[in-house]
Amino acid sequence: MQPMLKPTEVFAPSDKALVPFVSVDAMMTLIGARGIDVCLTELTEEISGCFFRWQEFEAIPRVASHSSIGVIELMPTSDGVDYGFKFVNGHPSNTKTGLQTVTAFGVLAKVATGYPKLISEMTLLTALRTAATSALATRILARPDSTTAAIIGNGAQSEFQIRALAAVCGITRFQLYDIDPSATKRCITNLSDQPFEMVACASGEEAVQGVDVITTCTADKAYQTILTDNLVGAGVHVNAIGGDCPGKTELHRDILLRSDIFVEYAPQTRIEGDIQQLDDDHPVTELWEVMSGRALGRTSAEQITVFDGVGFAIEDFAALRWLSKQVEAGADAQMLDLIADPDDPKDLYGMVQRHKGWVHG
Amino acid sequence: MQPMLKPTEVFAPSDKALVPFVSVDAMMTLIGARGIDVCLTELTEEISGCFFRWQEFEAIPRVASHSSIGVIELMPTSDGVDYGFKFVNGHPSNTKTGLQTVTAFGVLAKVATGYPKLISEMTLLTALRTAATSALATRILARPDSTTAAIIGNGAQSEFQIRALAAVCGITRFQLYDIDPSATKRCITNLSDQPFEMVACASGEEAVQGVDVITTCTADKAYQTILTDNLVGAGVHVNAIGGDCPGKTELHRDILLRSDIFVEYAPQTRIEGDIQQLDDDHPVTELWEVMSGRALGRTSAEQITVFDGVGFAIEDFAALRWLSKQVEAGADAQMLDLIADPDDPKDLYGMVQRHKGWVHG
Repeated sequence: MQPMLKPTEVFAPSDKALVPFVSVDAMMTLIGARGIDVCLTELTEEISGCFFRWQEFEAIPRVASHSSIGVIELMPTSDGVDYGFKFVNGHPSNTKTGLQTVTAFGVLAKVATGYPKLISEMTLLTALRTAATSALATRILARPDSTTAAIIGNGAQSEFQIRALAAVCGITRFQLYDIDPSATKRCITNLSDQPFEMVACASGEEAVQGVDVITTCTADKAYQTILTDNLVGAGVHVNAIGGDCPGKTELHRDILLRSDIFVEYAPQTRIEGDIQQLDDDHPVTELWEVMSGRALGRTSAEQITVFDGVGFAIEDFAALRWLSKQVEAGADAQMLDLIADPDDPKDLYGMVQRHKGWVHG
Repeated sequence: MQPMLKPTEVFAPSDKALVPFVSVDAMMTLIGARGIDVCLTELTEEISGCFFRWQEFEAIPRVASHSSIGVIELMPTSDGVDYGFKFVNGHPSNTKTGLQTVTAFGVLAKVATGYPKLISEMTLLTALRTAATSALATRILARPDSTTAAIIGNGAQSEFQIRALAAVCGITRFQLYDIDPSATKRCITNLSDQPFEMVACASGEEAVQGVDVITTCTADKAYQTILTDNLVGAGVHVNAIGGDCPGKTELHRDILLRSDIFVEYAPQTRIEGDIQQLDDDHPVTELWEVMSGRALGRTSAEQITVFDGVGFAIEDFAALRWLSKQVEAGADAQMLDLIADPDDPKDLYGMVQRHKGWVHG
């Protein structure tokens, strides 16, 4: 546990002024202390719960500000009780200067008062929720007897995907491939303390040999064919996670054409997902429809199912909600003096004037 | 100066992880130390500078989430170098439970990297920028020889409006009226150390007697006629600040019909401002058009000018930009460990795993 800043040691704003903040350090402490399996399992349940009551949510389009080298987005949503939003950037050239391509933070607020109740780093939390969402889709759509998975693309997201598939879906063997063998090596080294089996493969073809589940999580910002048509056999479930923005895809179009396709939110996925390769009216099913019994999921052992995941605001909302419960249960958070709280709401000026720092009239 | 949390005392994230946070306490310290006149004057210049280069800004519509008892809004904008947004709520029933009707916080980020560079409370900062914007409009539109002003509505915003009109526009006499005499009394008491003259008036009619400038900043969320037609004489400049959301107005329609009307951003003001009483095509001039020489402002001493102010994202952007300069110059800020910064961008999992808090495998 890090030494915490006790608000009363520094200043004495009222409780109404204070909003808990979960730093990167506090998030790492939380994950380490509770165990990543527990975190991923609970996040899967939280996302599942939110997807199940999908229609209670306000779907607010993400608000993007594009520049020549990147994008900054706000992703808000609300379930009528809580309101959440994520700030997230995407700047591929950042890595040249040692910065992250994608960073994020988020805020949860109370709809009843509009007051923020939580501010958090979301770079790590997004990695967890993305893995939990894949696990949720796999649990719903893969054959129940699935035990083996291929992981194509062994970058920053891969260990989280593997841990989630192991913890939530009972996958016991992973076949890994990346165009950069050092990425595969790093992934296997990082996970060497885990009970599941991992095999480094020399090609995508080798990696998908005999597996029940294929997860593609590559990072290239271009139309790619990570999976060619002949590689995907009957009965497989595919999580296509890496194709998540316009111009970025992973699957060959022919795979999509002979699969049943499941998405988070069709209007967004048609722009950002692998299905941007298909006609606008190509049938897809939203995952929540399966979960709530409005649509069919997997109906046979031979069917190929594809989850075309791009990340959706309700997943971030669910992640912030889960985190809020952790903080209420005692997880590390700094209390930020964010909300001005004058004794008399009409006397904002007097609050400033009576402050100890007041020097000039 | 408050004792500051030194990041190195608690954890040791890299510089890339840290984002300065200006708390309510730090904002009060800044205002107190620099003096509110200096802050208001500098903010007026900063807003003026941003209005002048208006066309460099991306006008992104505010994103509102409405509930039965309030609204939560995100207000983003960007000038291509910096990106800013404000989170702001509006919950009139909050005061019943001792909460603020409106609270706000904001974030400034770098467009080049998408990295946040400042997080700040914005309840106080919004009060300052609202007053600075009125002062800017008054400086541009009021008769140059103006020395007296009526302030109708003496709530939380009134002292800031008065200080800005005095500091920026040289107003030396204020005639105050509020339906609640205790509000007027509080305002005069709070400002009793100031060199300008203040007179409590028994009616709006008395308050506007002989003044050059009229500022209405009332809080009622309804169609009100704070100013009837006969009260506004030739040559007056009116700042209508309180009518700032649908269904909330302050001026009698006839005043508007015989005035030249100036706004921040017409599409927003037609929905939220006093001009919601007028036809959609009633001519109005955006303030930046006057400042950049594209449109006329005041052309005679007899003309009535109305600034129908509702608050616009570029003003918040300007305020955050001003604040960012203060922080760079040494103003109080806590450094928040907001951005995950692994040594190897591809090794997010390894960063968590190597963290001292890691207990479970």
